[in-house]
Amino acid sequence: MSIDISSSHTVEVGYDEFCGALAARDLQPLWKMAKKLMPQVPLPTTQSWLWKWDDVLPLAKRAGEIITIERGGDRRVLAFANPGLNGLPFTSTTLWGAYQYLGPHESAPAHRHSPSAIRFVLTGSGVYTTVNGDACDMEAGDLVLTPIWNWHDHNNKSDEPMVWFDGLDLPLVTTLESVFFENHPEQLQPVEGHNISERGFAGVGLREMGVESPASHSPLLRYRYAETDRTLESLHRTRGGSMVSLEYVNPLTGGPAVSTFACEMHRVYPGARTPSTRKTGSSIYVVFRGSGRSVINGVTFEWGPGDTFVTPSWASVDHEASETADLFAVSDRPVLQPFHLYREEQLAQHQEIVGKFVPLEGATRTVSM
Amino acid sequence: MSIDISSSHTVEVGYDEFCGALAARDLQPLWKMAKKLMPQVPLPTTQSWLWKWDDVLPLAKRAGEIITIERGGDRRVLAFANPGLNGLPFTSTTLWGAYQYLGPHESAPAHRHSPSAIRFVLTGSGVYTTVNGDACDMEAGDLVLTPIWNWHDHNNKSDEPMVWFDGLDLPLVTTLESVFFENHPEQLQPVEGHNISERGFAGVGLREMGVESPASHSPLLRYRYAETDRTLESLHRTRGGSMVSLEYVNPLTGGPAVSTFACEMHRVYPGARTPSTRKTGSSIYVVFRGSGRSVINGVTFEWGPGDTFVTPSWASVDHEASETADLFAVSDRPVLQPFHLYREEQLAQHQEIVGKFVPLEGATRTVSM
Amino acid sequence: MSIDISSSHTVEVGYDEFCGALAARDLQPLWKMAKKLMPQVPLPTTQSWLWKWDDVLPLAKRAGEIITIERGGDRRVLAFANPGLNGLPFTSTTLWGAYQYLGPHESAPAHRHSPSAIRFVLTGSGVYTTVNGDACDMEAGDLVLTPIWNWHDHNNKSDEPMVWFDGLDLPLVTTLESVFFENHPEQLQPVEGHNISERGFAGVGLREMGVESPASHSPLLRYRYAETDRTLESLHRTRGGSMVSLEYVNPLTGGPAVSTFACEMHRVYPGARTPSTRKTGSSIYVVFRGSGRSVINGVTFEWGPGDTFVTPSWASVDHEASETADLFAVSDRPVLQPFHLYREEQLAQHQEIVGKFVPLEGATRTVSM
Amino acid sequence: MSIDISSSHTVEVGYDEFCGALAARDLQPLWKMAKKLMPQVPLPTTQSWLWKWDDVLPLAKRAGEIITIERGGDRRVLAFANPGLNGLPFTSTTLWGAYQYLGPHESAPAHRHSPSAIRFVLTGSGVYTTVNGDACDMEAGDLVLTPIWNWHDHNNKSDEPMVWFDGLDLPLVTTLESVFFENHPEQLQPVEGHNISERGFAGVGLREMGVESPASHSPLLRYRYAETDRTLESLHRTRGGSMVSLEYVNPLTGGPAVSTFACEMHRVYPGARTPSTRKTGSSIYVVFRGSGRSVINGVTFEWGPGDTFVTPSWASVDHEASETADLFAVSDRPVLQPFHLYREEQLAQHQEIVGKFVPLEGATRTVSM
Repeated sequence: MSIDISSSHTVEVGYDEFCGALAARDLQPLWKMAKKLMPQVPLPTTQSWLWKWDDVLPLAKRAGEIITIERGGDRRVLAFANPGLNGLPFTSTTLWGAYQYLGPHESAPAHRHSPSAIRFVLTGSGVYTTVNGDACDMEAGDLVLTPIWNWHDHNNKSDEPMVWFDGLDLPLVTTLESVFFENHPEQLQPVEGHNISERGFAGVGLREMGVESPASHSPLLRYRYAETDRTLESLHRTRGGSMVSLEYVNPLTGGPAVSTFACEMHRVYPGARTPSTRKTGSSIYVVFRGSGRSVINGVTFEWGPGDTFVTPSWASVDHEASETADLFAVSDRPVLQPFHLYREEQLAQHQEIVGKFVPLEGATRTVSM
Repeated sequence: MSIDISSSHTVEVGYDEFCGALAARDLQPLWKMAKKLMPQVPLPTTQSWLWKWDDVLPLAKRAGEIITIERGGDRRVLAFANPGLNGLPFTSTTLWGAYQYLGPHESAPAHRHSPSAIRFVLTGSGVYTTVNGDACDMEAGDLVLTPIWNWHDHNNKSDEPMVWFDGLDLPLVTTLESVFFENHPEQLQPVEGHNISERGFAGVGLREMGVESPASHSPLLRYRYAETDRTLESLHRTRGGSMVSLEYVNPLTGGPAVSTFACEMHRVYPGARTPSTRKTGSSIYVVFRGSGRSVINGVTFEWGPGDTFVTPSWASVDHEASETADLFAVSDRPVLQPFHLYREEQLAQHQEIVGKFVPLEGATRTVSM
Repeated sequence: MSIDISSSHTVEVGYDEFCGALAARDLQPLWKMAKKLMPQVPLPTTQSWLWKWDDVLPLAKRAGEIITIERGGDRRVLAFANPGLNGLPFTSTTLWGAYQYLGPHESAPAHRHSPSAIRFVLTGSGVYTTVNGDACDMEAGDLVLTPIWNWHDHNNKSDEPMVWFDGLDLPLVTTLESVFFENHPEQLQPVEGHNISERGFAGVGLREMGVESPASHSPLLRYRYAETDRTLESLHRTRGGSMVSLEYVNPLTGGPAVSTFACEMHRVYPGARTPSTRKTGSSIYVVFRGSGRSVINGVTFEWGPGDTFVTPSWASVDHEASETADLFAVSDRPVLQPFHLYREEQLAQHQEIVGKFVPLEGATRTVSM
Repeated sequence: MSIDISSSHTVEVGYDEFCGALAARDLQPLWKMAKKLMPQVPLPTTQSWLWKWDDVLPLAKRAGEIITIERGGDRRVLAFANPGLNGLPFTSTTLWGAYQYLGPHESAPAHRHSPSAIRFVLTGSGVYTTVNGDACDMEAGDLVLTPIWNWHDHNNKSDEPMVWFDGLDLPLVTTLESVFFENHPEQLQPVEGHNISERGFAGVGLREMGVESPASHSPLLRYRYAETDRTLESLHRTRGGSMVSLEYVNPLTGGPAVSTFACEMHRVYPGARTPSTRKTGSSIYVVFRGSGRSVINGVTFEWGPGDTFVTPSWASVDHEASETADLFAVSDRPVLQPFHLYREEQLAQHQEIVGKFVPLEGATRTVSM
């Protein structure tokens, strides 16, 4: 029995009735929306946005007072919700950014999930995240991975709170309808040792023989800030310029530390705007130290320590530091590249500045032009 | 200047006021929605759904009468809009499925876009799609690729209309904010020859020396139904069973024909339900011939030639043919696999049937239990 | 205890005595042989050579009369021994070429080895080679693989002898000191079916779902001449020119059919010399049909059906057919390429012809200039 | 014109005459040598052998007195010539090992070649090797790469000689007939800076963004002993046991530092024999510090600082240190693995010791049993 086109009758209806008939059958006509669906260049729904440390920290502290950490609400996390995403708690269409607050002597219970997460420490000390039994110590500027389907819990053994940035691929994995989650049978998993993953990677380009790597993520789970700082300075001495950039990678493959997004550190030096560039895909930037401004599609975003901002796809972006700045970033580039969707270009000139970003509290946010 | 946690003050507010303060600053608390954001198994928004040929064809024919094809509305396409996706014209969160109707002696003008498309011919003859100068002839059951950023136009030289299935990665590329589109300077691009891409692939496992392949897609652009049919029969003679399945691949790499979704053909033989399986990611099935039913999460979907249905992530699915059936399918598996998000399992038993899918015209669709 | 350079004494000897002292301690001085060890361009030990069918066939037939096939001397094989290789039974430094003669109703017993072999059928019919249970039928022009560590035996069920070309990586695997060999417990292995490997590959670009490929070689074990012939003609219609070339590849990866050497077919059309090219690595050519000549480093080699010749590394080579010719070839290119040692170039002009190859029976072979 | 088997006549000759006829036509019969060509396990021609520092150093010093370094004999190199290889100056069938002696204030002129080389420094200081403009400083225990087709020259700016180990793939590349060599137009190439390659690799798992790597070798050209030492100690603290092993790898891919052989460091701790293992392919070991013995196929080889020994394919090998020892090694494993020829196994028991290696000066070397 094959498809029969001859036997069907046309429905003799006018255009409006015809459109209604389509809707009634869960059909939509492409010709009415082709230009919106297929624009000449990306029309991102993600908006350029910035969250101020001075706004977020008091709320995180207050959350520390009134929200307990327990099963059913495992984490004390404030997510950066992009205003362009219709109320979704996502920072871009692919990336989740949030600040997590862990009070003195608190622990966040053990679980695992198919979305991958990274933790970039903003402030605090004496905390460790246990990842499949490996207690990864967390100090300011460190990056700790809790990759896909790895058990993890967070433990603050100090008298001070810690705040870190959470980067996740949750929006992407939600779109891919592939979120799995599981609580660990114990509140906290047993600790086999501290910083075990570092032991096999004590020197660059030196690989333990006979040890296989997990295919899905870096076997190195902790990247210390001291190493990052030294590498950035070494690059700057060699390259010069207004910015040096590195990516945290799997030392066994050179690929991204987790497979679904890139973790990067950009050090911006005072004195000049970096060249304006644009690329497909979004990035979340966390200001670890220093201050300055970024111009995104012509709008200036001023930033200082602890601020977070997001750049949408194909936005022109440049940075300028008032004081040497470290911008930690996550980017969805590793998802775009294998599908040949990644494009990147440097603009011939700096974009003209047409306004300044001003998030107004308790009011509609506006961009002052 | 580093991040300063000491200087900030807590905001002394009650819980409701606190939540309001979060919202005012574009922050969302994870603890209120953790279970929804991170369910134990995927909670797809894509719904199982089916569109009947007898419903769609008359509308496609009517569109042929009242909608012209021209610049600005380049194609006469009826998209299968999944009712779970809030009015978006997408069939699943990653895949676009549609029927395209090209009347006798019509041409759809030349353009290109970063989303990749495939065309699976349902009915008609004497049509060709020109892909970067290669006029790929289209006959019933053929698959023709118009991959990422390849110029393409469609030309019906016959006295009969053609209807084909369009499969695109548009929802995914939209989420990745990477849609680019360009009209060709001419209405139709010049034709260098017909079925040029086939000439280098006249035998299995025989590769022309010294010719490079495009990295992003198969260099073979047309897959004839006669080849598909012969291969399915060969597999069935060898494997037996109630279903044989093949994937259309790049003959130079064995990878998917286009990089962002898989194209598959499943031949189901009468006599038994296939085993129930579930997998992450969604699929759109197009019934090319034969009839039968599929049980999706316990609900029966009856289908015949020309019907289309969609299966969401992690749904249990089995098929049963009344008459030997060819189910063409597209699946987002190639996007999930490189990120280690693909899971697939066969259930020990067939799912229990708890209802039957009944789309009611002009009314709220219901599942009759 | 570290290396101590200070405590040793120089040996006060003259140059000749010094050289003797080196030799006595299994040391060799680089400075005496640097130019020979590291020439500016490859100085192959492999010599250009040609073996005539009319010379080899009578000897193969005679071997059929006086040599039996049995354990301990499993095969009736005449190897092409390159005169440059000091009596080694190798055709080049990496490749073994031979003619194998299997008489009517004979079988060659089952064994396996780490060197990979291919069989290209010259003449005969009604023979099959069983490869891990799959009886691959052999007809003139067919290529059959017996890859690394696969059990194989040969069976002639006809009343006529068969002669085929054996191509092996034995010289390379000998250099890599990695030859393993094992006799099958039975004289002949059980046959599960005929041409099983072909069943999953009945169409180009159509891959059975859910079936894994062996990593080390093509899952397709037989490549029929009819397919090769059709593909060559299709290429010729498209490309034109004096030669079309294809490689037999793994249909699941596009890589070489066996991992250690390439199998190729070159069809040369009468009317013109092909461009002169040179490449690193050696090739063995078997003339399946047609006649003509090849100019190798300026020396003409005349060939006809059944002749075999070898080209050394970096030799300039062109071909010219008197009658449309099919040159089957094996090449070590897949070994050179991953190590970045493969170079290939087309010469601006045809090489000047300076002599003619004349192998003289029972005498020192000479090149008549 | 196809192959004609019918028209040829058998040659009516006896067996001896038949064999002579084969030889006269450069043919060799497989049945006479099948067992030798295809042994059940590898029968290496490479012999286990050891060269004593106390034998080699005086000769190297004497060479320093009587051999000048100049164009035409660019290097003062004493090659370890394996007695099994018929006078070839190769240490195994795939690997070249040698000691190179560079006197105070000497320079070895700039050239490049397709064979890749590594330099492992035994003793001395104040020397650098310039690799494509990058002056890589050489201190004891450092590894410096001079990979395929990279310009390189060696410069001793100190008042002391330096001795280093040269490891090359020259035997393999000779077999592949792919040796190219070129002298630099200048005696020494210009120096752009010192240790430039290290600047981009100041931290593990931190990769400069936007910088491409050469495909054929590590972009890091110098591996300092301090890093190696620290990594070995870190591994030992974690793993314990009598030996820890690391490989020098490309930090951007995890692959071998040069593509054709592996560079390894094995630290053996006193107290126990390591397990007996065997593997396909050969290795050259250089004793950088410490002393002990290795049992190779049951024969004991005593070693101390500066000694070098070679292990053939499939030989059972274990090591035992009297004093903590660092064994630098090169291995051809990266050539075997992609072709599925690499096998490795640990023996259930230590091999029984049946003799002791005694190289006798000026006489036939013997193994005293």
